[in-house]
Amino acid sequence: MDSYVSSVVSRLQMLYTSDHSSVVSMNLFVALLCACIVIGHLLEENRWMNESITALIIGVCTGVVILLISGGRSSRLLVFSEDLFFIYLLPPIIFNAGFQVKKKQFFRNFITIMLYGAVGTLICCCVISVGATLAFKKMDIGSLDVGDYLAIGAIFAATDSVCTLQVLNQDETPLLYSLVFGEGVVNDATSVVLFNAIQSFDLSHISPRIAGQFVGSFLYLFFTSTVLGVFTGLLSAFIIKKLYFGRHSTDREVALMMLMAYLSYMLAELFYLSGILTVFFCGIVMSHYAWHNVTESSRVTTKHAFATLSFVAEIFIFLYVGMDALDIEKWSFVSDSPGTSIAVSSVLLALVLIGRAAFVFPLSFVSNLSKKSANEKIGFKQQIIIWWAGLMRGAVSMALAYNKFTSLGHTNVRDNAVMITSTITVVLFSTVVFGLLTKPLIILLLPHAKQPKGISDPISPKSVTVPLLGEGQDSLDDFAGHPILRPNSLRALLTTPTHTVHYYWRKFDNAFMRPMFGGRGFVPFVPGSPTERSVHNQLQ
Amino acid sequence: MDSYVSSVVSRLQMLYTSDHSSVVSMNLFVALLCACIVIGHLLEENRWMNESITALIIGVCTGVVILLISGGRSSRLLVFSEDLFFIYLLPPIIFNAGFQVKKKQFFRNFITIMLYGAVGTLICCCVISVGATLAFKKMDIGSLDVGDYLAIGAIFAATDSVCTLQVLNQDETPLLYSLVFGEGVVNDATSVVLFNAIQSFDLSHISPRIAGQFVGSFLYLFFTSTVLGVFTGLLSAFIIKKLYFGRHSTDREVALMMLMAYLSYMLAELFYLSGILTVFFCGIVMSHYAWHNVTESSRVTTKHAFATLSFVAEIFIFLYVGMDALDIEKWSFVSDSPGTSIAVSSVLLALVLIGRAAFVFPLSFVSNLSKKSANEKIGFKQQIIIWWAGLMRGAVSMALAYNKFTSLGHTNVRDNAVMITSTITVVLFSTVVFGLLTKPLIILLLPHAKQPKGISDPISPKSVTVPLLGEGQDSLDDFAGHPILRPNSLRALLTTPTHTVHYYWRKFDNAFMRPMFGGRGFVPFVPGSPTERSVHNQLQ
Repeated sequence: MDSYVSSVVSRLQMLYTSDHSSVVSMNLFVALLCACIVIGHLLEENRWMNESITALIIGVCTGVVILLISGGRSSRLLVFSEDLFFIYLLPPIIFNAGFQVKKKQFFRNFITIMLYGAVGTLICCCVISVGATLAFKKMDIGSLDVGDYLAIGAIFAATDSVCTLQVLNQDETPLLYSLVFGEGVVNDATSVVLFNAIQSFDLSHISPRIAGQFVGSFLYLFFTSTVLGVFTGLLSAFIIKKLYFGRHSTDREVALMMLMAYLSYMLAELFYLSGILTVFFCGIVMSHYAWHNVTESSRVTTKHAFATLSFVAEIFIFLYVGMDALDIEKWSFVSDSPGTSIAVSSVLLALVLIGRAAFVFPLSFVSNLSKKSANEKIGFKQQIIIWWAGLMRGAVSMALAYNKFTSLGHTNVRDNAVMITSTITVVLFSTVVFGLLTKPLIILLLPHAKQPKGISDPISPKSVTVPLLGEGQDSLDDFAGHPILRPNSLRALLTTPTHTVHYYWRKFDNAFMRPMFGGRGFVPFVPGSPTERSVHNQLQ
Repeated sequence: MDSYVSSVVSRLQMLYTSDHSSVVSMNLFVALLCACIVIGHLLEENRWMNESITALIIGVCTGVVILLISGGRSSRLLVFSEDLFFIYLLPPIIFNAGFQVKKKQFFRNFITIMLYGAVGTLICCCVISVGATLAFKKMDIGSLDVGDYLAIGAIFAATDSVCTLQVLNQDETPLLYSLVFGEGVVNDATSVVLFNAIQSFDLSHISPRIAGQFVGSFLYLFFTSTVLGVFTGLLSAFIIKKLYFGRHSTDREVALMMLMAYLSYMLAELFYLSGILTVFFCGIVMSHYAWHNVTESSRVTTKHAFATLSFVAEIFIFLYVGMDALDIEKWSFVSDSPGTSIAVSSVLLALVLIGRAAFVFPLSFVSNLSKKSANEKIGFKQQIIIWWAGLMRGAVSMALAYNKFTSLGHTNVRDNAVMITSTITVVLFSTVVFGLLTKPLIILLLPHAKQPKGISDPISPKSVTVPLLGEGQDSLDDFAGHPILRPNSLRALLTTPTHTVHYYWRKFDNAFMRPMFGGRGFVPFVPGSPTERSVHNQLQ
């Protein structure tokens, strides 16, 4: 690998000024992505490691190599661009999250997830902002105003639960997985919305009126983004149902689903809404309706193609963050005062720990109050895992920090450079150290959840749901249950009052939504399907 | 649609200077892509039309709308970038061509395909160059040197057989389909290689030595590109076989195949080879080896995901070419002398017709000489269809013309503007007029090939192979035949001497290649597969 890298990089130098340099960068980057997948797979047996940490470490190593070869001039292949991140890499990740989420679990814990994801993120942001204001006043950081401190709060309130999800198993600990997963998505959306709201409001003198406007715009963004996502998802289901019935074409169906999903994200951006929330709910609606209107091949293809795109985008981000971490331009500003940078990073790490603890334990208490049965409550050990699982900071924090503290890709003020390097330090430290400790912590706290060997190990946990364990029964679309196959489940639901909303939703779904938009059991016999299946079998 | 476009475009104007304008453009573009798929599907019953022509027409209409709204200032949403075309859009199309090609047919007609694709393109290029030199000398075009004329030859020798392939049916006319398809791919590669060779050589004074060097570099490019593609394909097969055996992970397998395919293209670009040829042969090798080493889900996913990407890229290109056709900047240069532009376009169209006739009929004669049985020969009516099928000029011509006659996206010399507008005219005219006439011509010349209704109509012809007709039996990988299931076929092959190469290749493939790299029948029982299949069935 290294000899290859060096030969490529020497070419890079030769051709640095020509157009060819972008070809070289792309080559190296694609080769590194392949290397991450291969090495990540080889290290997978060691469940401490995962693709994210591997990509991060490979990225840092590549950065070092490029730095040495270029004689300390550069460590980057591509300039970190927010556009690249927010327009191309984040949408597939979030869409896939919505598309693959176990809707039954997600909506069963909807209130708890919203408590953690929305209220919790706000609390975390406030704690970090206040803590940073108090701590940084004593340090030599320069002048940051109220808006800057609130932005720092939003930046470090954005969790990155990808690492944790690679360790948590959705069949063994479905409640934990669903909570951490759901919170991660809502948290992503909340922190980005919060950050944008902070950026657009003049917060130098806070009055009740401005605070009211702030909360109002926050709620407006949340609501309209969700509605837009649901609308786009339903539209795509409707188009596919009307258009392709009896005349299925896998390529077109898949293309349409992909483009409509992307369109939902871009439409949200167009109307200055939260694309993350929109595309997440678009994914949920698509997997509930549109996914059932297509051929079997289309179903398999979309399921795995979306997962693959998301997987590649995640690796891309971690590789990039790792490679960008050593960018000499940023560190040169802080090299004369390394103490300050270390102090700032330590303070921020401490605030991240405190800020998360400040909402996980109180909100879990609140959530437990509403639960009647003991096994629905979130135990203290589980609370610790939830707390720990959200400590990692990742690409969203990086992207927000770049947005706030750089202009046109360059870090030219010293104060800003301190904040950028501190963000990088926090991201690297939390991902690698906290990430590596997650698995041992889970084994320590939940020893019974130790994985039974040989059941789901050889298969990617993300793309395959093994139907062996009790809670694992809900596949891609079990939110609507099995009204025909298991009529008793309706009665069971009625006895538990928290599920009353589900009951009415199901009635509405069966009576109106599914006949209109398609969905499991509501798509008439499709002539294309048997052909597809026989072709499919032929390919085996 | 129109009211939506106008509201979006009015926003576009408001926000034209801000960053938001790119978001607006992308929205409009993605929405138009969706519209093309939907409208193309609705028009599909009318087999004169297809997605390419639909996309082209929608593109032109959108261009008109934008032109009117912007008050004649602009008709473009995105600036046509060669990078976009050659780095992102072309690779998936060509890779998919290699991946889905019926290898048995392709290699059976390999010599004929190479005659048409390589020798034929050279003849066509020469005819057009000579014709253009003679014709343009009498017109008021300005000074073009020998290199320019040769470049024009290469530009207009690049066919675009996408339209034809949507009309030809690979089950009814397998020989025609295979010839047109194979020629199209080899032609793409040849014309790009030829164009680059012309650009890099100083051809103002041709000597035998320079001509020899030219041919040498052409052959070198052809050979090394093929070897690189085969090598990358084998490497990916080897990695997937070694790495994932017994520990399958669909997402990673798909990601690895996708990234390795892209890497092959980028590596070719890195070493100044022909990425098109490389990625084509990489696709062939991957479908022959790597595709058999992965899980069933991965197979379905890759098959359809690659087809979908290629499909979207094609529509993207046609939509873009249509939209770009009305760019006011180019036409303003030629508006004072519309006669010249029309004359140049007419001459070029005539030369395209002559140039193609100049090689299809003689080379078919040569090819027929080597065939023994009468039904293997290419009849005169079939020759006419082959001639007609390659008359369309498309995105490759556009991209090459832009490369040659613009600098930095702007057309600032009048002579160059004439060539660009003529290219656009030829592309639009040939795609729409010739494209629309293809289906009637085929029905006229081959009335027995009229499609039997209801067998393969509802299914996409590209992604599904219906195993009903004699020649349709070879699925994604029948090149290697059924040595175990049908031992008699070996003897049958030996009786026909043209298949002797096949016989030795099969022996070599079975004895060495497939045990090493995997392939049908040579992958040991995989523990992951049954699980995958049961999960898969569960999802139905």
